[in-house]
Amino acid sequence: MSELRSKFLEVYSVLKAELLHDPAFEFTDDSRQWVERMLDYNVPGGKLNRGLSVIDSYKLLKEGKELTNDEVFLACALGWCIEWLQAYFLVLDDIMDNSVTRRGQPCWYRQPKVGLIAANDGIILRNHIPRILKKHFRQKPYYVDLLDLFNEVEFQTASGQMIDLITTLEGEKDLSKYSLPLHRRIVQYKTAYYSFYLPVACALLMAGENLENHVNVKDTLIEMGIYFQVQDDYLDCFGAPEVIGKVGTDIEDFKCSWLVVKALERSTEEQKKQLYEVYGKADEASVAKVKELYKVLDLQGVFAEYESKSYEKLVKFIECHPSKAVQAVLKSFLAKIYKRQK
Amino acid sequence: MSELRSKFLEVYSVLKAELLHDPAFEFTDDSRQWVERMLDYNVPGGKLNRGLSVIDSYKLLKEGKELTNDEVFLACALGWCIEWLQAYFLVLDDIMDNSVTRRGQPCWYRQPKVGLIAANDGIILRNHIPRILKKHFRQKPYYVDLLDLFNEVEFQTASGQMIDLITTLEGEKDLSKYSLPLHRRIVQYKTAYYSFYLPVACALLMAGENLENHVNVKDTLIEMGIYFQVQDDYLDCFGAPEVIGKVGTDIEDFKCSWLVVKALERSTEEQKKQLYEVYGKADEASVAKVKELYKVLDLQGVFAEYESKSYEKLVKFIECHPSKAVQAVLKSFLAKIYKRQK
Repeated sequence: MSELRSKFLEVYSVLKAELLHDPAFEFTDDSRQWVERMLDYNVPGGKLNRGLSVIDSYKLLKEGKELTNDEVFLACALGWCIEWLQAYFLVLDDIMDNSVTRRGQPCWYRQPKVGLIAANDGIILRNHIPRILKKHFRQKPYYVDLLDLFNEVEFQTASGQMIDLITTLEGEKDLSKYSLPLHRRIVQYKTAYYSFYLPVACALLMAGENLENHVNVKDTLIEMGIYFQVQDDYLDCFGAPEVIGKVGTDIEDFKCSWLVVKALERSTEEQKKQLYEVYGKADEASVAKVKELYKVLDLQGVFAEYESKSYEKLVKFIECHPSKAVQAVLKSFLAKIYKRQK
Repeated sequence: MSELRSKFLEVYSVLKAELLHDPAFEFTDDSRQWVERMLDYNVPGGKLNRGLSVIDSYKLLKEGKELTNDEVFLACALGWCIEWLQAYFLVLDDIMDNSVTRRGQPCWYRQPKVGLIAANDGIILRNHIPRILKKHFRQKPYYVDLLDLFNEVEFQTASGQMIDLITTLEGEKDLSKYSLPLHRRIVQYKTAYYSFYLPVACALLMAGENLENHVNVKDTLIEMGIYFQVQDDYLDCFGAPEVIGKVGTDIEDFKCSWLVVKALERSTEEQKKQLYEVYGKADEASVAKVKELYKVLDLQGVFAEYESKSYEKLVKFIECHPSKAVQAVLKSFLAKIYKRQK
């Protein structure tokens, strides 16, 4: 494990201990144990990419200047706030999607004795973020901007999740609603803001920057987030399950995936009719027919083209940025995702 | 309808229209309609006591000075933030408790096509609060205190809800855990902070006060909140269903009610044994036995005693406060709840 990662996990233990002794609430022994188990189960078990990228970004913004212990701690704390946010979304999403597993273990709400208490646990996770921010950032000049940032990004994510949920509404399966603009809108709000913009925005605030001067950075990161999700959609169908760590079910789940949107765009009337019949059905034959059509329409080629075009566009955009440090931050994000296989 | 109430409802329409055109999110037509329906269904249909008390309190703090239109609007907006908070808790609580009706209509999650999307709707409701605050209070000197206040009170409410949920955990019915301190802790955190302290704290902030100078006000309101919930527990069993508007089920639901805690305190070993056997069972005979025991133990008399003692204590406490205006705020709260029948 890298040094940074182990430092990051150390900070998790500090934050957890603080939360379990928060003076704003008088814990009972039972409730303290409950929260500790809930945190350990849901917060630190992911890839931690979003959280770690706050520190990576902050380092790049500081252009190699050695960080103080205090700076490292604070950047880690903000990284954890994003991981807490992610945990909150995942706990609630899993309930809404009736999911079975998450990160290789049963979903939290499926644990014995948990059930729908998980909804309140999600709320608790969400509430921990302002507790962490208040404890460690209350005296910083950018405290109010941090609160605004987390509030805005959470609002955008929940709104993206809403369009996703109501377009995939059971009993209203209607492919004619699916289009590239709708796909873009879902992905932008549901994923890009919190996964790509939020970590960099946290680092910028810590570095004393005014986010209003960085609209270009935001736009670039949102584009990257959309590109990332298109990859995700692609890998769900064409990735190797043993590499991506799961068996994709976007077709069965009637998801507004980039693939189905592209397929609709490129289909003849006849092919479209066929797609309408089989998309969103759980039986193997229907799924196979969708995949066959994707191949006939050469979606693999279309994706390869999209991928290189996106990359070029993003690089060009990044190189226009006046600050080399900011360029480095954006390039490091792009390098992490370009042509990823998982 | 009173003038204040109709002004208050007018502000709801303004806030709703703003939220439906929030520039931080690009609504689809479907999602805008969804949010509008969800707001109208869940936000304005309650008694609005919490929301209205922000304006009442603010007026009293201003000692009869005529409020400007702007002040009225802002006090109403803060009142609505509390109603939004309440709606958010109720939507999620109803899912967790598997409830059937709320405010005389089916619970939101039981509406056709809604189901567990209601969990995300709850999140949306919650996210509207910082949107309202940012739009109307961003430039106020007390903006950051407002954010901190709402964050802290939400955290306390969710934490109180957590102890309530884990002590009533299915399959762990254990009366020996129930005690007056536990009851107090649940009630204080789950109800008193957001129902009693929050409206007055909002009014104090608008009036330019520093909340740290009003710890006594907080403590008094928390005591009132606890007294209010004890009344609620009492009315659940002894109130007239046609007056309180519902048939109480605390006994069947194995709730940590003030009544059962008092009963445990006053029972002989024999009576305790009997209570352990029948409390939390849904059949009529068991419920009747619990009620019979409550009568034998004269819980009606114990409650009457508790009520007058609490009232005296609160009045004494209030009269120690140096500010007549603050006294008036606290007395108006107390007058609204003393000896209430519903």
